[in-house]
Amino acid sequence: MTSPSHSQFWRFDNRPEANINDSTFSLQQRELPPLEEGQLLVKNLILSMDATNRLWLGEREELYMEPISLGDSMRGFGLCQIVKSNSRLYQEGQLVSSLTEWAEYSILDANAVQAFVAPKDMPLDLAFGVMSIAGPTAYHGLLNIAHPRPGETVVVTAASGAVGCLAGQIAKLSRCHVVGTAGSDAKCRYLVEELGFDAAINYRDANIEDALRQACPNGIDIQFENVGGSILDSCLKLMNNNGRVVICGLISMYNSAQNVPGPYMFHNSIMKRLKIEGFVILDHAAEFPAMQRYLAQWIQDGSIKFKLHSHQGIEHASTALQSLYTGENNGKVLVKL
Amino acid sequence: MTSPSHSQFWRFDNRPEANINDSTFSLQQRELPPLEEGQLLVKNLILSMDATNRLWLGEREELYMEPISLGDSMRGFGLCQIVKSNSRLYQEGQLVSSLTEWAEYSILDANAVQAFVAPKDMPLDLAFGVMSIAGPTAYHGLLNIAHPRPGETVVVTAASGAVGCLAGQIAKLSRCHVVGTAGSDAKCRYLVEELGFDAAINYRDANIEDALRQACPNGIDIQFENVGGSILDSCLKLMNNNGRVVICGLISMYNSAQNVPGPYMFHNSIMKRLKIEGFVILDHAAEFPAMQRYLAQWIQDGSIKFKLHSHQGIEHASTALQSLYTGENNGKVLVKL
Repeated sequence: MTSPSHSQFWRFDNRPEANINDSTFSLQQRELPPLEEGQLLVKNLILSMDATNRLWLGEREELYMEPISLGDSMRGFGLCQIVKSNSRLYQEGQLVSSLTEWAEYSILDANAVQAFVAPKDMPLDLAFGVMSIAGPTAYHGLLNIAHPRPGETVVVTAASGAVGCLAGQIAKLSRCHVVGTAGSDAKCRYLVEELGFDAAINYRDANIEDALRQACPNGIDIQFENVGGSILDSCLKLMNNNGRVVICGLISMYNSAQNVPGPYMFHNSIMKRLKIEGFVILDHAAEFPAMQRYLAQWIQDGSIKFKLHSHQGIEHASTALQSLYTGENNGKVLVKL
Repeated sequence: MTSPSHSQFWRFDNRPEANINDSTFSLQQRELPPLEEGQLLVKNLILSMDATNRLWLGEREELYMEPISLGDSMRGFGLCQIVKSNSRLYQEGQLVSSLTEWAEYSILDANAVQAFVAPKDMPLDLAFGVMSIAGPTAYHGLLNIAHPRPGETVVVTAASGAVGCLAGQIAKLSRCHVVGTAGSDAKCRYLVEELGFDAAINYRDANIEDALRQACPNGIDIQFENVGGSILDSCLKLMNNNGRVVICGLISMYNSAQNVPGPYMFHNSIMKRLKIEGFVILDHAAEFPAMQRYLAQWIQDGSIKFKLHSHQGIEHASTALQSLYTGENNGKVLVKL
């Protein structure tokens, strides 16, 4: 491959006060600096759009990683191909997955990337979409934190999202009674008819507490939380003793400038003897290969279905990310460069 | 012992809207029913006053056990001596600890009580005060849930209370840096000078967040929470990654008629990868003997100090319980009959 001298990239221009909008980023051109020892020049092939990306644009002091500085390139998870390697760890042409940039080309530290090998006969975009972030997040949160037992009831919020639909399907594989919440009737039908959820609730037009009560006649043992706010409160009300609440995401709070109150039912942590646990999947990167073996098998044998929602071209990255918050997406949102 | 025919008891008359007051209970006389098979007639020797008692007077549907019905006797943990036994499990004269009543005499189910043997040379009131509820609560919450490691920082709220002072001292035994919060300078001095806490903060006149920041230069690894509300929020701000928050009590919320918001820093469950876990010590009664062996040893070898605040006479039970919420007590509040 010939080594490029310049690259398009999405520059972070304005911290959004609420929703990401068209003035948050702009597409710019930059010169690529020379490659230093231990670095890789990569071509970004596919970018993963994740709800957590919004958090990196804020100034919360308690963010789980460094926020992005104004003027810098937007950051994202990506599937990358090595164009030039100044490291013995990787060679030209190899595929890696990594925290990278919204850019055509990026320079990455060889120690910070992971080799990526798509399972046999699995399209690259599907493999990347399931296995890079969404799959390990669902696997770790559900199986390693919540420890589902057959017959238990699991509620997954934002269940038609990339992580939610996997968490729900893994809960079904664990022989649980699985209920999802989503933002449209079409998504709810998809969850039940295509993915095998036992029930799905459209949070936009249901009385969520009544609907949950009906869908969870034996109460809730595991809450796989992606949303937060009033849905979480309704679930906390219905938790059984010794329930587990996995805090995977709190997307309803990410767009708010100020801190919002925590769950009003927080005292149920005592009343119901709950374990409430948050996690950041990047902490567990070393465990990804073990999880990915199972995920690949479940995709290949059809136990798990997964939909991609791909946008073609780097120029669509900003609108692709915004779609996560409006609920327009259906499945894993990717941008192919 | 001669078998009594009547007994004084505290009748639950009015559900308090906020604080317990003098019209909540009244001291009454009642006839004792005949003893059925499997029952014990006991004389209540010492009653334990616990913050959780307040919860039993409410109507929260999500209470961790049955609330007390109006007109019934007030319930409490107690040290009891068997006056008459209709069970093969226990005999007359034996001491048992149990959930019992605020009454001179009570009839208990033999399956619901536990034999109580004070450690050698330990006064009965001290043994009961440490080992019946407060000690197992502190032990289980700190050691079994939070798993302290040497060098970690532990914050205990309501640290001069019965559970708090034990949790803090067990954390010191675990070689942690221990900071307590309490409601007076005298209590704070007691924590540091007598009990060996590394620092103590008077929450009534300190900026709690600044004071915690100063007292916890390495952040907080374990939060042993007895209070809730704004103190909990300040602690959540300062938690280190992978911190553990043990929800032992939320006393600041128990007197409020309505649900109050949960912690504003709830999103730190993700940002700091926190494990937040509530518990009810009565669930773990089978493990009490194992914990009590350690507690007895620590009291006897002087590693742990414990103060009793005893009221003499059943007629003082109501004021004794109220003292828990005004912060007038110092140490474990008991009522000796």
